[in-house]
Amino acid sequence: MKQELSMPVIGIVRSPFHEKFGIPRQPNLVQVPATIELLEPYNNVQAFAGIQQFSHLWLLWSFHQNKDNSGSEKFRAQIRPPRLGGNQKIGVFASRSMYRPSKLGLSVVRLLDVVEQDGQVSLLVDGVDLLDGTPIVDIKPYISYSDAIVSARSGFAPDAPASLRVNWSAQAEQETASLMQQALLSQAQCRIIEQLLALDPRPAYQDDTQRVYGMRYDRVNVLFSVDEEGVHIKSIACVQAL
Amino acid sequence: MKQELSMPVIGIVRSPFHEKFGIPRQPNLVQVPATIELLEPYNNVQAFAGIQQFSHLWLLWSFHQNKDNSGSEKFRAQIRPPRLGGNQKIGVFASRSMYRPSKLGLSVVRLLDVVEQDGQVSLLVDGVDLLDGTPIVDIKPYISYSDAIVSARSGFAPDAPASLRVNWSAQAEQETASLMQQALLSQAQCRIIEQLLALDPRPAYQDDTQRVYGMRYDRVNVLFSVDEEGVHIKSIACVQAL
Repeated sequence: MKQELSMPVIGIVRSPFHEKFGIPRQPNLVQVPATIELLEPYNNVQAFAGIQQFSHLWLLWSFHQNKDNSGSEKFRAQIRPPRLGGNQKIGVFASRSMYRPSKLGLSVVRLLDVVEQDGQVSLLVDGVDLLDGTPIVDIKPYISYSDAIVSARSGFAPDAPASLRVNWSAQAEQETASLMQQALLSQAQCRIIEQLLALDPRPAYQDDTQRVYGMRYDRVNVLFSVDEEGVHIKSIACVQAL
Repeated sequence: MKQELSMPVIGIVRSPFHEKFGIPRQPNLVQVPATIELLEPYNNVQAFAGIQQFSHLWLLWSFHQNKDNSGSEKFRAQIRPPRLGGNQKIGVFASRSMYRPSKLGLSVVRLLDVVEQDGQVSLLVDGVDLLDGTPIVDIKPYISYSDAIVSARSGFAPDAPASLRVNWSAQAEQETASLMQQALLSQAQCRIIEQLLALDPRPAYQDDTQRVYGMRYDRVNVLFSVDEEGVHIKSIACVQAL
């Protein structure tokens, strides 16, 4: 007899990530800003009184873009984590994979502010690894004395991923200047795009230095390739359909 | 239109805590051992392959002993956390209170072993703050490079609670010896009971040095009082109805 628990969606993430490609594999690696818009009846600033005493929050959220969200799919006991090159299988509970029974994700983010405007309560955070539209099921304060276990041994993910050098082509530089003039791109966003690319968003099993990848971030699409010298930004353009 | 997400219970906790009283307010403060028994179809050792590379795990679980589990209760935006003496209100999302919309708890525990016996897969863990019978909805590896934020500022819970001195009465010493002879209590359990009492399990707003409290741990009930000198264990007896 399978027991199910149900819980309400309390808010929705508004993030510059509109596609999975480019999202860091863990939160808090790049200071990507996002907003959590609370839904009724949680859209109540009283429910967040005191939260600004905490620098960081836990977000519990749902992998809403899983192919099958009906809950009816068969349980898959093993997955292939990207950190292991995509061809070694491990247990799903030994991973943070989205293909898990609960479909719950757990991310620590930095709390920047709580705002209320025109009756909408929003949390401003950064360090997100969340798609635009992600449903939030819980928000908890990060309590360092119990949550920060510095001595923890973390198997195949012992360190933050290495950072690649990022180079801008002359074309990309010019396009960036033009986008900035039109206020479609900011210096802060350029720094974030660099940091996202430095983490190497390619699938771990791909190593074709000729291949050109596209990463969307907020209102722009970035074309790049990766070789032994690092990441090469080829061009940056505004996404047409906004 | 309220959106609900549902997720399966993947396992059940077997813990020495049969009552809320005495459970540490955060996990990983006392090395209380527990077992997580996986349910079908998650009762599959393949789903845990590789997990022993991680020293710590996150457990996502449900506060199953909340008075109202029907999900129909009204949202309460504020709670009174015990750390603030029980009379100051803060937002529910600025707390780890159980009275939250998701009813989800988040605990980091130490992984000791994964065992399979007679077709039952179990995880042996310690550091739990979980009642016996707690339903588990997810198990994730603790990844120190993203999860351990040592610099996090944690508002009204900046440090682990202070530890009180624990004194044993002559009567409690004798009862303990007798329980040990009957193999109803071990030295390791005595150390855990001491550590639980040292955290002062009394509600924060109670400070009656004459009052005798009872704390159940596994098969025993411990009677104690607290004054300015610390905790006084008055007696230890086996719980009758097992």
